[in-house]
Amino acid sequence: MNGPVLADSVRFAGDAVEILDRRVYPFEVRWVRCATSEDVAAAIEQMVTQSSGPLFAATAGMVLGAREARRDPPAEAAARLRAVGARLVATRPTNNHIRDAVHAVLSGITAEHGDALVAAVERAARAHDAAYRARSDALGEHAASLLPDGARVLTHCWADAYLIGTVRAAQRAGKRLEFVCTETRPYLQGARLTAATLVEMGYRPTLITDGMVAAALSDGLADVALTAADRVTLDGHVINKVGTLGVALAAGAFGVPFYALVDAPDPQAPTAQDVVIERRDGDEVLYALGRRTAADGVTGYYPAFDVTPPHLVTRIVTERGVYQPDRVKESL
Amino acid sequence: MNGPVLADSVRFAGDAVEILDRRVYPFEVRWVRCATSEDVAAAIEQMVTQSSGPLFAATAGMVLGAREARRDPPAEAAARLRAVGARLVATRPTNNHIRDAVHAVLSGITAEHGDALVAAVERAARAHDAAYRARSDALGEHAASLLPDGARVLTHCWADAYLIGTVRAAQRAGKRLEFVCTETRPYLQGARLTAATLVEMGYRPTLITDGMVAAALSDGLADVALTAADRVTLDGHVINKVGTLGVALAAGAFGVPFYALVDAPDPQAPTAQDVVIERRDGDEVLYALGRRTAADGVTGYYPAFDVTPPHLVTRIVTERGVYQPDRVKESL
Repeated sequence: MNGPVLADSVRFAGDAVEILDRRVYPFEVRWVRCATSEDVAAAIEQMVTQSSGPLFAATAGMVLGAREARRDPPAEAAARLRAVGARLVATRPTNNHIRDAVHAVLSGITAEHGDALVAAVERAARAHDAAYRARSDALGEHAASLLPDGARVLTHCWADAYLIGTVRAAQRAGKRLEFVCTETRPYLQGARLTAATLVEMGYRPTLITDGMVAAALSDGLADVALTAADRVTLDGHVINKVGTLGVALAAGAFGVPFYALVDAPDPQAPTAQDVVIERRDGDEVLYALGRRTAADGVTGYYPAFDVTPPHLVTRIVTERGVYQPDRVKESL
Repeated sequence: MNGPVLADSVRFAGDAVEILDRRVYPFEVRWVRCATSEDVAAAIEQMVTQSSGPLFAATAGMVLGAREARRDPPAEAAARLRAVGARLVATRPTNNHIRDAVHAVLSGITAEHGDALVAAVERAARAHDAAYRARSDALGEHAASLLPDGARVLTHCWADAYLIGTVRAAQRAGKRLEFVCTETRPYLQGARLTAATLVEMGYRPTLITDGMVAAALSDGLADVALTAADRVTLDGHVINKVGTLGVALAAGAFGVPFYALVDAPDPQAPTAQDVVIERRDGDEVLYALGRRTAADGVTGYYPAFDVTPPHLVTRIVTERGVYQPDRVKESL
């Protein structure tokens, strides 16, 4: 069966890696060709891909890095590959997927160099990608178990593999779902990526602006609020696309459960102070799909993520199961 | 001195009324010519003007209505003018300004017809406009009294005469202010109208998306949240541009006072059930400045206003002073 387009949006094409440009999907299906590991890093920085995309881009970038190091002597090859990994990790600081993907690939090699290094990195990259897909599917089963038949689900931004896994699990269980999606400015991931994927999976989502969340929940438009988490700390803070905190506040105010999805909490982040919140260029707030939306003379402010404290989170769903936020570290 | 452009955005031009098109300001300064009272009604429905704009458009529309009735016999002239008023009132249901403007104009005439009718309506329209400007100025003095020197003010949507009155009063008092404006999708009134007007008045506002309100207040970016109210009920519910409820929830969660501005509570609305919340065409959510922003297959949902309950409102500022929400009827 053909899955949603975004379920497979990083691919190898000859010597290069191609990344589906999520800044323009579904209006255009454009693949950004990355000939080098540096191209991959730049693509991640420039938001060509996001959500789960950078994980797959990072493992692919490491494969390109191994190929770039193919003719290096052993010690130099290893050093070059570590540098490629550091460059990829430095692209975006908040989600821990890139860091973990680079670590997994580097851990998968020992003293290889030349073709053996390339083969080992390719193997480790494939294994990491597959493990993430399996974790997302497991997470999806647990998340679907929380959704009653007929549930109307409010989404924010684009939860990617977690959402696809959840929807597939609900479909296997014969559960009907409806969706209300925030548009998620400035990049409109909800209006474009989430909405398009849900349409591809057979739904007709309702779209609201980001400012309508509280009104929608007050009006009873949704029964459940469901988002991904870019990072979950060991004490249950949910760091996710900016706007999630407002969703959680509204959900709490109107008695709607708020569930956050993450493959696993981050063992390196005991609490929210351990997570760097990416501040992106404020100019990104002043445009929609490349067109200026704001008056001259203003300055944009763009924290890409916000922090939702545990008391506003009903449950955190991981690959291992469903957890109260204050007990999520038991998922490790 | 030249005031902000939007402070005077309905004008007579020969036989017609011209309304500044707020859907495109400040990118274009385009005046929509309304040759008839019906043109005025259609312009209000189509969002050519909003916030305080429809009040001035409504009194101007009544003047056109009187001119259209100039050759009618007395009884028919009065009936025609009442019908024009009913048409104008029917354009948008949530804000009570149009209703009150039409009522004021109709109350200002007795048995006039012909030229005398036109003169009486023109007089009543001018008086109503002037009284509203005076009320907004008085409101502005009271609102400015709540803002400490150096206050950083979060705005949502476009509070028009109330905001201009508040800023002018703060400037007269020598208070420095800073502004953080939500962009206010789908029409971007914050990014365009509020931001442009504040720039015209000498500020450099910070712009955030609607989803960033909670993050901004959590980050300490603003000290005060300040919005207009399209309607305030006698028991202190604040009905305003959708998104206001989320602003109030975030303000409450992070200890920021939330002030709502309205010239007066509505004596005809004891509580929120007495107010019709306008549901606009959901397709308006699927575009930004005329460009499609959403995937095919989705349905937009657009409640133009939301209802903030009194317990989430710190104070309501009227032309008469500053009130606890549960005591706002004392302002009548």
